[in-house]
Amino acid sequence: MRRAPPDPELLALNTATVREKWTLRETIEGCARHRIRGIAPWRDALSQMGVKEAAKMIRGSGLSVSALCGAGMFPAPDSNARRAAIDEVRRAIDEAATLEAGCLALVPGGLPEESKDLAGTREMLRDGIGEVLEQARSAGVPLAIEPQHPMHCASRGCVDTLAQALDLCDELDRGGAALGVAVDVYHVWWDPQLKAQIERAGEKRLLAFQISDWLLASRDMNADRGMMGDGVIDLPLVRSWMEECGYRGFHEVEILSAGNWWRRDPNEVLATCRVRHQTAC
Amino acid sequence: MRRAPPDPELLALNTATVREKWTLRETIEGCARHRIRGIAPWRDALSQMGVKEAAKMIRGSGLSVSALCGAGMFPAPDSNARRAAIDEVRRAIDEAATLEAGCLALVPGGLPEESKDLAGTREMLRDGIGEVLEQARSAGVPLAIEPQHPMHCASRGCVDTLAQALDLCDELDRGGAALGVAVDVYHVWWDPQLKAQIERAGEKRLLAFQISDWLLASRDMNADRGMMGDGVIDLPLVRSWMEECGYRGFHEVEILSAGNWWRRDPNEVLATCRVRHQTAC
Repeated sequence: MRRAPPDPELLALNTATVREKWTLRETIEGCARHRIRGIAPWRDALSQMGVKEAAKMIRGSGLSVSALCGAGMFPAPDSNARRAAIDEVRRAIDEAATLEAGCLALVPGGLPEESKDLAGTREMLRDGIGEVLEQARSAGVPLAIEPQHPMHCASRGCVDTLAQALDLCDELDRGGAALGVAVDVYHVWWDPQLKAQIERAGEKRLLAFQISDWLLASRDMNADRGMMGDGVIDLPLVRSWMEECGYRGFHEVEILSAGNWWRRDPNEVLATCRVRHQTAC
Repeated sequence: MRRAPPDPELLALNTATVREKWTLRETIEGCARHRIRGIAPWRDALSQMGVKEAAKMIRGSGLSVSALCGAGMFPAPDSNARRAAIDEVRRAIDEAATLEAGCLALVPGGLPEESKDLAGTREMLRDGIGEVLEQARSAGVPLAIEPQHPMHCASRGCVDTLAQALDLCDELDRGGAALGVAVDVYHVWWDPQLKAQIERAGEKRLLAFQISDWLLASRDMNADRGMMGDGVIDLPLVRSWMEECGYRGFHEVEILSAGNWWRRDPNEVLATCRVRHQTAC
């Protein structure tokens, strides 16, 4: 089935897509130049110019922040380290508020060093989110749990499915709008429950939509994502599921690609994103 | 919690673990020498000596066949290719019967060339299993659907979770014992539903248990499995879930390891399997 192309105004860029070539300043300028209206900075990029300066420049360039990325990672080997992780997320919530970000995306975190206790790791994550949730609510920054691909379970992804993320939302934020999910197609495209869980999430919990593609020939687990249209994910179909639930937010391109897109001129990358958003999403 | 080590008589070897160094004949002799009672041959290894000769030698060496592997892959681009795939599985059922195998393990298969239709691919799998199920029942060879790790979804794993495999069992074989699942820890260890789905499967549908380990530093999706104890999977815990459901079958070592175990002397590999089965499983 051929679907109508998406609204070009909804294209957003995750800064990780061009992180090898451009500073945050260059990325903001690049988005403005390529008429990309949304930006999702990673916290490490943010630190280059400071949060207030970044917020000012992003607003001044007519951009909106779809999400702040790079926070989370709650599980840790001992209570001091877990406390430090929670404090770091608290700082990220403040940053997201300054940026007027649509949400703070949370990478769940993986097994603490030497641990094989996956159930206990998942409890650390739950408890960590529980600790910061009130601050996020007060700050008006919804937290978006981002399920990771199961191949990242050990290293950073103790939440691996939308169902699991939504179970956490229901447990910690019953009926609320302080906690939701980030749907990154690269992480969740394989899930036989994907459609059902997007429907379960509904508009209120669908906080972010990240796009890229899964390359059929991919062997590398870490930074080998494809440009939209170059892989096997039926992006228009997944977008239609999001939209049928009322999602009207950005379509944020996040392509980690050490062998290909990170090496290219970011202007070419952004121009390609713009075209592929219309032809392959 | 420290659990009692497993019964050493339950150790089995999947021939893929030593496939780079040993023929099937050498593997059978090696198992006998190392007092490993179970063997799970891949069909390509079987073709080296022929099925009848292999069956005779395996029985003569005092071994049992825990599973026959390397069948499945139902989805295909057109009806002729799908028919050929089904015929191939029919041949595999006959071979499994000759070998008196505990089950025929089915690798589901992935997206047909040029396809992004994951739902349609899953229907091809379901229809394919539906076509061969009666033959399997008559031959006394239960079919074990082996959910693949989601990172293999596109290439061979359109069944990615135990829940999905068990939904297929319930749909195609309601109340029966002709269809079940193979639980390979490498593929399913991350699943937040793992315990619940093993319980759901129960003794009747738990047809095989494959062991190896997930290496924390792994980057390669294809052949970088760890020896039991070298990774992050809590193997004694998963085994306890299997045993609590009444599973009494083999613990079949399947380690695809291009960079490490495939390079070593298989006698060392088998000796290590024997030790680790007692200390890490």
